[in-house]
Amino acid sequence: MNMKKLITLGAGLPLLPVIGFAQEAVEAVEDIAEVAPSFDEIGPYIMTTLLFLVGGFLVFWMAAGFTMLEAGLVRSKNVTTQLTKNIALFSIAGIMYWLVGFNLMYPGDGFNGYVGGFFDITVLEAVGLGAADADLEYASVASDFFFQLMFVAATASIVSGALAERIKLWPFLAFVVVLTGFMYPISGSWQWGGGWLSEMGFSDFAGSTVVHSVGGWAALAGAIVLGPRLGKYKDGRVNPMPGSNLALATLGTFILWLGWFGFNGGSQLAAGTVGDITDVGRIFANTNMAASAGAVTALILTQLLYKKVDLTMVLNGALAGLVAITAEPLYPTLFGALWIGAVGGLIVVFAVPMLDKFKIDDVVGAIPVHLFAGIWGTIAVVFYNPEVSLMTQLTGIVAYGVFTFVVSIIVWYIFKMTMGIRVSAESETTGLDLTELGMEAYPEFSKG
Amino acid sequence: MNMKKLITLGAGLPLLPVIGFAQEAVEAVEDIAEVAPSFDEIGPYIMTTLLFLVGGFLVFWMAAGFTMLEAGLVRSKNVTTQLTKNIALFSIAGIMYWLVGFNLMYPGDGFNGYVGGFFDITVLEAVGLGAADADLEYASVASDFFFQLMFVAATASIVSGALAERIKLWPFLAFVVVLTGFMYPISGSWQWGGGWLSEMGFSDFAGSTVVHSVGGWAALAGAIVLGPRLGKYKDGRVNPMPGSNLALATLGTFILWLGWFGFNGGSQLAAGTVGDITDVGRIFANTNMAASAGAVTALILTQLLYKKVDLTMVLNGALAGLVAITAEPLYPTLFGALWIGAVGGLIVVFAVPMLDKFKIDDVVGAIPVHLFAGIWGTIAVVFYNPEVSLMTQLTGIVAYGVFTFVVSIIVWYIFKMTMGIRVSAESETTGLDLTELGMEAYPEFSKG
Amino acid sequence: MNMKKLITLGAGLPLLPVIGFAQEAVEAVEDIAEVAPSFDEIGPYIMTTLLFLVGGFLVFWMAAGFTMLEAGLVRSKNVTTQLTKNIALFSIAGIMYWLVGFNLMYPGDGFNGYVGGFFDITVLEAVGLGAADADLEYASVASDFFFQLMFVAATASIVSGALAERIKLWPFLAFVVVLTGFMYPISGSWQWGGGWLSEMGFSDFAGSTVVHSVGGWAALAGAIVLGPRLGKYKDGRVNPMPGSNLALATLGTFILWLGWFGFNGGSQLAAGTVGDITDVGRIFANTNMAASAGAVTALILTQLLYKKVDLTMVLNGALAGLVAITAEPLYPTLFGALWIGAVGGLIVVFAVPMLDKFKIDDVVGAIPVHLFAGIWGTIAVVFYNPEVSLMTQLTGIVAYGVFTFVVSIIVWYIFKMTMGIRVSAESETTGLDLTELGMEAYPEFSKG
Repeated sequence: MNMKKLITLGAGLPLLPVIGFAQEAVEAVEDIAEVAPSFDEIGPYIMTTLLFLVGGFLVFWMAAGFTMLEAGLVRSKNVTTQLTKNIALFSIAGIMYWLVGFNLMYPGDGFNGYVGGFFDITVLEAVGLGAADADLEYASVASDFFFQLMFVAATASIVSGALAERIKLWPFLAFVVVLTGFMYPISGSWQWGGGWLSEMGFSDFAGSTVVHSVGGWAALAGAIVLGPRLGKYKDGRVNPMPGSNLALATLGTFILWLGWFGFNGGSQLAAGTVGDITDVGRIFANTNMAASAGAVTALILTQLLYKKVDLTMVLNGALAGLVAITAEPLYPTLFGALWIGAVGGLIVVFAVPMLDKFKIDDVVGAIPVHLFAGIWGTIAVVFYNPEVSLMTQLTGIVAYGVFTFVVSIIVWYIFKMTMGIRVSAESETTGLDLTELGMEAYPEFSKG
Repeated sequence: MNMKKLITLGAGLPLLPVIGFAQEAVEAVEDIAEVAPSFDEIGPYIMTTLLFLVGGFLVFWMAAGFTMLEAGLVRSKNVTTQLTKNIALFSIAGIMYWLVGFNLMYPGDGFNGYVGGFFDITVLEAVGLGAADADLEYASVASDFFFQLMFVAATASIVSGALAERIKLWPFLAFVVVLTGFMYPISGSWQWGGGWLSEMGFSDFAGSTVVHSVGGWAALAGAIVLGPRLGKYKDGRVNPMPGSNLALATLGTFILWLGWFGFNGGSQLAAGTVGDITDVGRIFANTNMAASAGAVTALILTQLLYKKVDLTMVLNGALAGLVAITAEPLYPTLFGALWIGAVGGLIVVFAVPMLDKFKIDDVVGAIPVHLFAGIWGTIAVVFYNPEVSLMTQLTGIVAYGVFTFVVSIIVWYIFKMTMGIRVSAESETTGLDLTELGMEAYPEFSKG
Repeated sequence: MNMKKLITLGAGLPLLPVIGFAQEAVEAVEDIAEVAPSFDEIGPYIMTTLLFLVGGFLVFWMAAGFTMLEAGLVRSKNVTTQLTKNIALFSIAGIMYWLVGFNLMYPGDGFNGYVGGFFDITVLEAVGLGAADADLEYASVASDFFFQLMFVAATASIVSGALAERIKLWPFLAFVVVLTGFMYPISGSWQWGGGWLSEMGFSDFAGSTVVHSVGGWAALAGAIVLGPRLGKYKDGRVNPMPGSNLALATLGTFILWLGWFGFNGGSQLAAGTVGDITDVGRIFANTNMAASAGAVTALILTQLLYKKVDLTMVLNGALAGLVAITAEPLYPTLFGALWIGAVGGLIVVFAVPMLDKFKIDDVVGAIPVHLFAGIWGTIAVVFYNPEVSLMTQLTGIVAYGVFTFVVSIIVWYIFKMTMGIRVSAESETTGLDLTELGMEAYPEFSKG
């Protein structure tokens, strides 16, 4: 559909050459066919780039999964707000990660191990890149950026769920700016950018800690500063506030499960050798097993404990299994994936009521799923990866926890003091959709 | 699961050898392994075929996206009808594009540049094709057909949304037959079939004009001939008719966003060289950026203009960003994608109320999103692709507009005069689901 | 995100070394780049493994499709139960197929053709497999396991829909254990494990019989033992019990349609030659055509028969088209796919009321779609694949039917006698969500 091999000697100038944005060089594209290098040289680059693109669109899809899960678990009077927050946070993450995050997280040479250079905008390689100019040991920068971008968005989605039904839209989005532009990339660089934790031998394959716990810590800080929903904890009792649409919540869980194959599989970061593609297969199989085990554990446990299966626990059990295997989806056997995932499911079943004891109101169970199971998964690495030490894993867990929790508390507190982060009691009672947005999600379905 | 390398000397005759349908040759399949050519020769063919298959299933998924978006934005009394229209139009498109469209759009040698040969049924290559018989410079015909087919279905889906809540089912489907079998393929051939606009240098990478504007023009013609919904414009006021399920509408938007990676990325039409796969990566990154920018623009603009964020505008803003980058997702920098997408979002916010001024009732905002942002995207090509001239782009925009709008007006008018295209006022008031189909989408949820 | 090329000399022991679970060898991973074999050798292995991973995640997605379809077609008082059954069955299938099923289905050498060895747990290949240790003629074991696992889950999902709205949760899940761990793998081995039907020349490319009919037979047996829903057949009349959410049902159908590209395309079992990838393209195009034809047939037929289009028939028509083409999606021409799919759609339109005549209450139409269209598709192989004989096809159809139906009847009957399989009349009337699970799917939407 395009005439892509035209010789072009320079990209046109954008209409708004503001703030000295770097201009990407677009070099002459020669007819590639004539000088085509051997597939032995370029095959791995092509396959790994493809892995990032396929993995990336699967992780993109998780944004829809979080949105459906959260929209299904809030009450119908807050659904439009939850939908808005989720599509907005994804969009903001996409801009902030380009503007600041990506190069802050992967700072390259001269990195001190703690914080890279700020405001180094992401620049893609030239159109029609020649093989000689490509990093044939790895993959296209654009595909890598696309893949990594989806991870930062996932982190922000985790926060969104926990704080539902009482937070103001704009302060939440302001937090997303800070989280996706600065907090996540800085702490992410410690491990995936080759920083101090990576140097120390900390191991977190696809982000039980770097992504999920970070989201969980930020959510926990927010939930504490924000306080519980009105009426949630009253007269010493926990009042259930059931989600309005469990079909959506289940759909969201399946979407997340699907996306996780990209999340973990793509984190192999290579697909062009027998060993790498086989490893990706192992990761897919283990990821699926851990999710299954988490779901079955929650299924059985809720039957035993409450005499009735609890669907929301089963959904969160599957997700906790997924979070738990994320730190090491490659080395465990299928049986290893099974019990690691099962412990994830078990954590969720016991942690959800525990949080309620502390009057921490986490609307969708994001903290048990992403923070607690994330910690568990990071510890579980030591059982199957003999190169990894428990002390180093704990160091990493604590480092991410302290940094993310402290900075989040400060940011949430500043927002609370300045713009206010919580809607009025009246607005909360009526529902955020009508009071904050003036638009109901299900305007025709009368409420029981 | 199959014994695919059996020697077969001819395909069995179908039971119904009607109308002289061409019989595809199925040649003897030799053991491929023994004569396997080098990956240097076949690698690009395999990768590009794979690109079409993966890109194709992503664009297929857009059919579900349009369906959910539209089902969420109509009132609950018309949801079953909207669902029916969408699955039916997709199915009809699949048959018409095989029967007529594909070879009409890609007529090959002897094409006069304006209209190819009619009724040249699509024939796939033989089972177990040998490398010597394949077009190793490109990809499998079947994969190409599969990919292109999904684009024509998208065009028809655009029309479906704009005309919702008052059009009769069968006249709508009759229009789909004309659009997908004839109109879209004929005008599509001007550009992607190597016709006169392609000769002239018109540039539309993945179809801002060829797909989206065409759908938008056909929808505009239909909306004019059909007239607005009863009560929409009354006493000089615009009566809002809010969608019944914004969770579905948001899901539909995420599905479309996901599918768009295939829509734009697959349109690179090649994936087997370093340059091509890197370009696909660029396209993915730019596509995501444009959508994010469109959504954020609508988010901010609706807050500024109306003091409240409007979720449906944010959804349409993301979609307008996607439509806008579709004409040139490769050459822009990420910053280019950002501002091109942002202008798309801006167009939507201002165009939706403008259409209402003209009493053109577009139920889901398809005309602003697909037609106006499509025109914008086609113009924006000139900012980043120096080979492309503004005059040629305008020529293409006008050519597609005049052809599609005029033919559509005529077809809609003929249908109106012959079978009638609009349901009765009584049926419209009661809802099309009960009166036309006798089946409610949500029979148990009482209406407020 | 990982340091994947660390030298590791043995996997850590899991905490729970129970029941003598096999310990997978994790060998030293050498730097692969230095000894990289040529892409001519490894390219097919990489591509086929990729086919299994992409095909596998598409078929995984079908689990969500079945869930949405079934949740949309039951009444709102049973939606939570249906959601729970579906996520639970998928999870259980994942565990049982690892524990027993996979090696029972693909027993390898020494197989007597009827039943392989039990309790041979699935073991994946080593991490960082060297090319010398890989089966370069095929694909990674892990990817193959992942792909095949999704098929057994699909079989169980079929049963779930037919028996909705009156079956107890745990007996249903117990049946899933038997079906996914034993029944499906044993009968599956007859064909895909190289057993007696495969020896005889039976042909079922992707499972019209092996997967869909088997699910249909198990569902039919269950529906007979379980009996119809209360009030479904009363005073000689069939009382319609319309589904609560046709938007979900339509979404589920689109998801299944999408997943089917992986189901049929992945069943080519190879993607690394020109012939194989071209065949995958053919399969995609044919699969889409059969679905389209099934939908259009049901669209036209219901208009002719009932004067009104019936959306649920259109959805089931598309699915029946898909089931029908599944036994042979490769050899037919596009016209062949069209009429094979169309007959599938026709079968559904006539079989749904026929089942009601026999008072067999199949809530979602699973038996017409998966069993009847599955039989049809298995017969239709003979029209396009000249190597296949009608007698052999009938033999296979009968063999799968007798085995699955008889064993299922026995198992269902044992469950009925021991734990009971049906909820109380009171529970059924109130709805299973409140009585069995204590959790409504849509607690706020008042029921009409």
